[in-house]
Amino acid sequence: MEGKEISRAVIKRLPRYHRYLDELMEAGVERISSSELSHRMHVTASQIRQDLNHFGGFGQQGYGYNVEFLYREISKILGLDAVKNMIIIGGGNIGQALANFESFKKRGFVTIGIFDNSPQVIGKTISGVPVMDIAHLETFIENHEVSIAVLTVPKSVAPQIAERVVSCGVRAIWNFAHTDLHIGEKVVIENVHLSDSLMQLSYRLSALPEVKNG
Amino acid sequence: MEGKEISRAVIKRLPRYHRYLDELMEAGVERISSSELSHRMHVTASQIRQDLNHFGGFGQQGYGYNVEFLYREISKILGLDAVKNMIIIGGGNIGQALANFESFKKRGFVTIGIFDNSPQVIGKTISGVPVMDIAHLETFIENHEVSIAVLTVPKSVAPQIAERVVSCGVRAIWNFAHTDLHIGEKVVIENVHLSDSLMQLSYRLSALPEVKNG
Repeated sequence: MEGKEISRAVIKRLPRYHRYLDELMEAGVERISSSELSHRMHVTASQIRQDLNHFGGFGQQGYGYNVEFLYREISKILGLDAVKNMIIIGGGNIGQALANFESFKKRGFVTIGIFDNSPQVIGKTISGVPVMDIAHLETFIENHEVSIAVLTVPKSVAPQIAERVVSCGVRAIWNFAHTDLHIGEKVVIENVHLSDSLMQLSYRLSALPEVKNG
Repeated sequence: MEGKEISRAVIKRLPRYHRYLDELMEAGVERISSSELSHRMHVTASQIRQDLNHFGGFGQQGYGYNVEFLYREISKILGLDAVKNMIIIGGGNIGQALANFESFKKRGFVTIGIFDNSPQVIGKTISGVPVMDIAHLETFIENHEVSIAVLTVPKSVAPQIAERVVSCGVRAIWNFAHTDLHIGEKVVIENVHLSDSLMQLSYRLSALPEVKNG
């Protein structure tokens, strides 16, 4: 797949396919037509075919998709076939919540360390993961295989923490700080802005037509 | 603004404008040209002008934008000029983390109740907000002004909980359950799928060119 440019829109849909196929497997469905899948996912069947054609298709005319096979293939495309170690920087509420997510572990994302600068959390253990002093961040990364750094720190320190992890060789940042991070092309960043999502909801709520009471 | 269709892409960018303008105000910047704003936001200046023209412009030729004025106008468009009461359903880690977010309160989103079905959390207080028995959900909504229901429950119960709040008149759902909710047109839903974001990051990390060690 190297060298092939896949658009961000397609990449955004892949986890959705993964999620729906997971649900189908849980429901015991063994195969599904693209029209059925499209109906469930609220996208067109031709969109699904187009998206999957980027990776070689996987469907069979008149048969549809083998759910488990497609699930496994999409897992591989998403890089979920290899365990990825994560560290969480910021042991506050959201950091603790992320460390607790069983569904991440199930997909191969394993949190191996949490870092904070507050004496009140350093030394604690969250979901079996030790909270360490941020001063030891570099040493830890040098001695462990760390694929992803999760940033749940205040926005004022986020850019500086991002630089620290990147300078130690971490190449993926999952950023929850309330600011967009922009770091060179050799590092991938996903910014999760919960407030942005809440504000979109607020806008759409304001734009709903009024309902008459009574 | 009623009746005018604003595209989802524009709505998605509005919170970003809000966020950048907030940062500019904090930095003491009073006015900014669209080219400066575009440089910071990594979007084109013409995109900014187009986006804001949907709402009447706000810029002045040769002067640029008054930061505070634009911030206030976008706040109004986003419905942030009125306090919105939220309830959180699911008092687990993510629910607790959301109840704790000071930045939501600052933007007018006030959590007035948390609901759960576990005797271990019912009766607790999280950030000053009481955790109540989910059995009292309907009574609570009928006796309070609730604008937004936040769902941090397992996906298996999410659709049913969503129906319960909607049947009591709640018109906005912020869904963190790992499943897409689809409910009629009179209700707005934002689905936040943290796993999807993490999987996108994973894909993009896998697609990065290898770096030679040593």
